[in-house]
Amino acid sequence: MIKVIDMRDDKKGDIYGRLPDRISMDDSSIMKTVGEVISSVRQKGDEALMEYASRFDNVKLTAETMRVSKEEIAEAYSRVDGELIEVIRKAKANIEAFHAKQKENSWFSSEKDGVILGQLYRPMEIVGVYVPGGTAAYPSSVLMNVVPAKVAGVPKVVMVTPPKKEGINPAVLVAANEAGVDEIYRIGGAQAVAALAFGTESIPKVDKIVGPGNIYVATAKRMVYGYCDIDAVAGPSEITVVADETANPCFVAADMLSQAEHDVMASAILITTSERLAEEVKKELEKQASRLSRKEIIEKSLENYGAIIITESLEKAMEVANRIAPEHLELCVQEPFSLLGSVRNAGAIFLGNYSSEPLGDYFAGPNHVLPTSGTARFFSPLNVGDFIKKSSIISYSAKALGSVKDDVIRFAEAEGLTAHANAIRIRFE
Amino acid sequence: MIKVIDMRDDKKGDIYGRLPDRISMDDSSIMKTVGEVISSVRQKGDEALMEYASRFDNVKLTAETMRVSKEEIAEAYSRVDGELIEVIRKAKANIEAFHAKQKENSWFSSEKDGVILGQLYRPMEIVGVYVPGGTAAYPSSVLMNVVPAKVAGVPKVVMVTPPKKEGINPAVLVAANEAGVDEIYRIGGAQAVAALAFGTESIPKVDKIVGPGNIYVATAKRMVYGYCDIDAVAGPSEITVVADETANPCFVAADMLSQAEHDVMASAILITTSERLAEEVKKELEKQASRLSRKEIIEKSLENYGAIIITESLEKAMEVANRIAPEHLELCVQEPFSLLGSVRNAGAIFLGNYSSEPLGDYFAGPNHVLPTSGTARFFSPLNVGDFIKKSSIISYSAKALGSVKDDVIRFAEAEGLTAHANAIRIRFE
Repeated sequence: MIKVIDMRDDKKGDIYGRLPDRISMDDSSIMKTVGEVISSVRQKGDEALMEYASRFDNVKLTAETMRVSKEEIAEAYSRVDGELIEVIRKAKANIEAFHAKQKENSWFSSEKDGVILGQLYRPMEIVGVYVPGGTAAYPSSVLMNVVPAKVAGVPKVVMVTPPKKEGINPAVLVAANEAGVDEIYRIGGAQAVAALAFGTESIPKVDKIVGPGNIYVATAKRMVYGYCDIDAVAGPSEITVVADETANPCFVAADMLSQAEHDVMASAILITTSERLAEEVKKELEKQASRLSRKEIIEKSLENYGAIIITESLEKAMEVANRIAPEHLELCVQEPFSLLGSVRNAGAIFLGNYSSEPLGDYFAGPNHVLPTSGTARFFSPLNVGDFIKKSSIISYSAKALGSVKDDVIRFAEAEGLTAHANAIRIRFE
Repeated sequence: MIKVIDMRDDKKGDIYGRLPDRISMDDSSIMKTVGEVISSVRQKGDEALMEYASRFDNVKLTAETMRVSKEEIAEAYSRVDGELIEVIRKAKANIEAFHAKQKENSWFSSEKDGVILGQLYRPMEIVGVYVPGGTAAYPSSVLMNVVPAKVAGVPKVVMVTPPKKEGINPAVLVAANEAGVDEIYRIGGAQAVAALAFGTESIPKVDKIVGPGNIYVATAKRMVYGYCDIDAVAGPSEITVVADETANPCFVAADMLSQAEHDVMASAILITTSERLAEEVKKELEKQASRLSRKEIIEKSLENYGAIIITESLEKAMEVANRIAPEHLELCVQEPFSLLGSVRNAGAIFLGNYSSEPLGDYFAGPNHVLPTSGTARFFSPLNVGDFIKKSSIISYSAKALGSVKDDVIRFAEAEGLTAHANAIRIRFE
């Protein structure tokens, strides 16, 4: 099922072109549909939201029922297993503790007489979190998207999720409440994104929209970017395991399968210096997959986007891993920390045989919203800084400005901006 | 020419709706044109670049002449005024010193036995900087876009700029060379953005594209977002001055004019508690504008997007300023630092009567690439962090994983992800 690529004789070591491209350009027909939804919400506000809820979700909404009540949230607690609530609380505490370490302070510096420069850090004021309906409504994702915003100091976090006849997944409501969500609205799709970007009578206009969604939601986010901020573009996800002969084939296969079960587009790749390990992992993949509930998804994912790559050295293995720039990178080798200096592109790095990827998905504390599909070349995990704005600070005394005025005037005049030069000159006339 | 809005009797204090919206949605006809250009560059590479150079720029290019040679750069130095070269060097040193203070370190933390968490910071590997042709080719912008990438540690910075019969502005070439640009290519427009995003025979594929450009360039950047990173969406720029009766009307007017000269869409707004200052600034604007070379642009800008707003208190003035969320905020008041705690949304903050905005544009050190058109609600100035990726680090020992395994398994099973649960369980069987 999974293909094996032997790169030991491949001097170029280039993995591009041997693995399929999983990013694709915007679909213009989807952009047209989404553009119409956005226009409608901008023009008609709540009325448009109610129309779409009726048409797409088959739910009748009013301005009142659009917002999830305190009673519904309280009731959700009674419908969720008590032990799961405890696990959600522990996970939230870990996520909070890790993200608190990302917080940075505003700073000033004064190195020349009469000059103060610096940066003022301020949280955004309102953030919107999109939570998908259906089977992809994960309480863990609610924690991962909301907690960093709250740690950043965002005073108001608004959650939206599609209306459903049977009500919202109670575990999602519990996670939202534990994470500190301030308001929850029963709206979904591109219309929910438009409502958050522009505001309606009931929905507040936000500074940033985060959270996963289907292609309509993702397209709507791209289209409103600039009116508000959005999180990184998310594509199909992946794991790359770099392993030597000390790795446990059974663990490696299990971690690859945990990625493959997400989506038929997900990609699980092993890069190893050990031919024996390659063979054993291949066998383990088949054995373990056969008894997993999502085995059909897993088989398609491994067939199309999985690979076992054999390299002549760990150095070469790391080169290949950096080209892949995986969302999750596991280093299952004898001395994992010694490889850390070779990692250039990865969303999250898991070191050693017991740092299994699902540990990071749920519990360790670092964010599971990670750059996917090779975008770890330039994107980072969701973090506290994503909800902070930095303003530059410039303070010059008259004397300090006087000592550089001729330089500033010369530069402005060289660029033909005479009013800029005038603004400096007039202060010394 | 400029309108005066008295808000002293306006209890709501809402400036929205009283100032025109300056952001607009994507134009679908431009997206179609740009989409075709991108496809053509992806398919035909250099050949497409040469065709567009011939068609749009009326310049014949070869793969060899596409790249600017060392000799051309050396020659540029002989064509630029020696004193301007010195000013460019001083400005670069100031920009470098300020941005060096933004650099952060990777970190680890170990608070539980057998657990190490952290973040690994790595610079991007290749960054592309777009520099417009024509009158908007500003050497100062070259410094502001290139220096933060170099301070971040980006090993290769590639610059592109439209080919022109008369050659590239020599001051731009000098600034590029001083800032440390590694390669310069004579390509422009949407085709240059596509070449950077996807790579061609001559142009390297980059991790991020920064720099200003016309609507085709801006649209192309949005369309390739996800294949690479891009900088924040830039719109028309603005200044807001908050002033009390101690401000100098002549300085305030001069700074407003320096913003207005950029563009007929630029916006210059004064918010003051002093009716006398409002009147004097209005007179100064007319007087100074009449002798400035770009007075036609200035008059249109002030007429359409300028305003003098009178408020009953500085507190109210700051509320209005925060709603505007200006690119440049000047605090021309008796105690400017005392207002800093009230600033929530601003790109760059200039404190006191001698911190004139052009000082920040050219020389002080903080970046002049700032969030515009109200996007300071959520965007920050261009900074070193924009060229750094952060990878999460997770390391758990067998014992540490053992102590949380039941929690992780419970969470995974609650979400229906059985392969995730299996990956943890199998390690303890």
